[in-house]
Amino acid sequence: MKIKVVKDILGANEQIAERNRQLLDSKGVLAVNLMSSPGAGKTSLILETIKRLKGKTRLGIIEGDVSSSLDAEVIGKEGVPVVQINTGGGCHLDANMTHSALGNMPLQDIELLLIENVGNLICPAEFALGEHKKVLISSIPEGDDKPFKYPSMFHKADVVLINKIDLLPYLKFDTDAFSQAIRGINERAEIFQISCATGQGIEKWVSWLLTQMSRRQS
Amino acid sequence: MKIKVVKDILGANEQIAERNRQLLDSKGVLAVNLMSSPGAGKTSLILETIKRLKGKTRLGIIEGDVSSSLDAEVIGKEGVPVVQINTGGGCHLDANMTHSALGNMPLQDIELLLIENVGNLICPAEFALGEHKKVLISSIPEGDDKPFKYPSMFHKADVVLINKIDLLPYLKFDTDAFSQAIRGINERAEIFQISCATGQGIEKWVSWLLTQMSRRQS
Repeated sequence: MKIKVVKDILGANEQIAERNRQLLDSKGVLAVNLMSSPGAGKTSLILETIKRLKGKTRLGIIEGDVSSSLDAEVIGKEGVPVVQINTGGGCHLDANMTHSALGNMPLQDIELLLIENVGNLICPAEFALGEHKKVLISSIPEGDDKPFKYPSMFHKADVVLINKIDLLPYLKFDTDAFSQAIRGINERAEIFQISCATGQGIEKWVSWLLTQMSRRQS
Repeated sequence: MKIKVVKDILGANEQIAERNRQLLDSKGVLAVNLMSSPGAGKTSLILETIKRLKGKTRLGIIEGDVSSSLDAEVIGKEGVPVVQINTGGGCHLDANMTHSALGNMPLQDIELLLIENVGNLICPAEFALGEHKKVLISSIPEGDDKPFKYPSMFHKADVVLINKIDLLPYLKFDTDAFSQAIRGINERAEIFQISCATGQGIEKWVSWLLTQMSRRQS
């Protein structure tokens, strides 16, 4: 891990994020920042989204990982543009990394950019990338107490996807209590229950995405 | 989130961690740093460990969380000394926070200190607390690709506990491939398969703890 003297890094990040947003707007691209704990289903959600939107919507994907390009390789097989960011130990994407990735993305050819952040329920919440919407995936096996323990991420989400609902029969998880806990922190977030394993609920998520895109174009 | 000018923070952290370790050694306390993704089972493991060692081994617990004292309240009911650390947004415990917590822990009355780190598979790996052993809990629903994506945490672990093996029938997870992936990064780590839900494998973990304690006392 490299140590840097860091001063008002969030302020600087916001400025770069704003420039990213202007670039995306000028190209008519809706950008969504997907955040979650490790293994909650970000890559699976991207694959399910591609499956449903391919041929209808021009997608691009940015893959953020501490290390490896495993997910980018899997997604690359779907025939959509993918840019990998490796943070090299860093625990979140930032606007500068995103700016570099945007330079390698054919923005004129896409309408919807899904950005998979690093698997982490804390730091990614604090760093804007230039996205239009923040989406949090929280999965059943993580437990229904997560909004209390990681409030900032739940507070900032425009959408909370409750993933892996196919595992509900095998785990203690109170979906009503979980939704109430989210509401205590965030009144505006849309909440969808989904399973990337069975496909349940994915249509609602995709409809939400399409609605956001049409709102921006109108 | 507060912004600080940070300079060589890891070096300073190491010095404080070393002082914590000396304090723990002078009191004959074995300290174990429990790390994992959010919801992988740190608190459940602590509860299972207390259940098996209560009356035999004098335990103390430090609970690290971004926010809330939910886990400390649950553990406090077991009648063992618990100190809560709230990081207030910080994504990992550090040696200084641990030092403060040790000041509130009756060290002369305990032999084994379990420190539950913040749920995060990245940053806690970089910050020594003064612990004698680092234990990583990785759970089946997170997927078997995690060693490739979060190599530092897997590299530094003395023990990797594969938790939630009761969910193996319902998920795609190759335990052999997972163990091989760990071995590619870390040849020395002990690997145990456990389920905090069913109790499977917990005895081996507890035996490992008792062996570490007897080695230190001999």
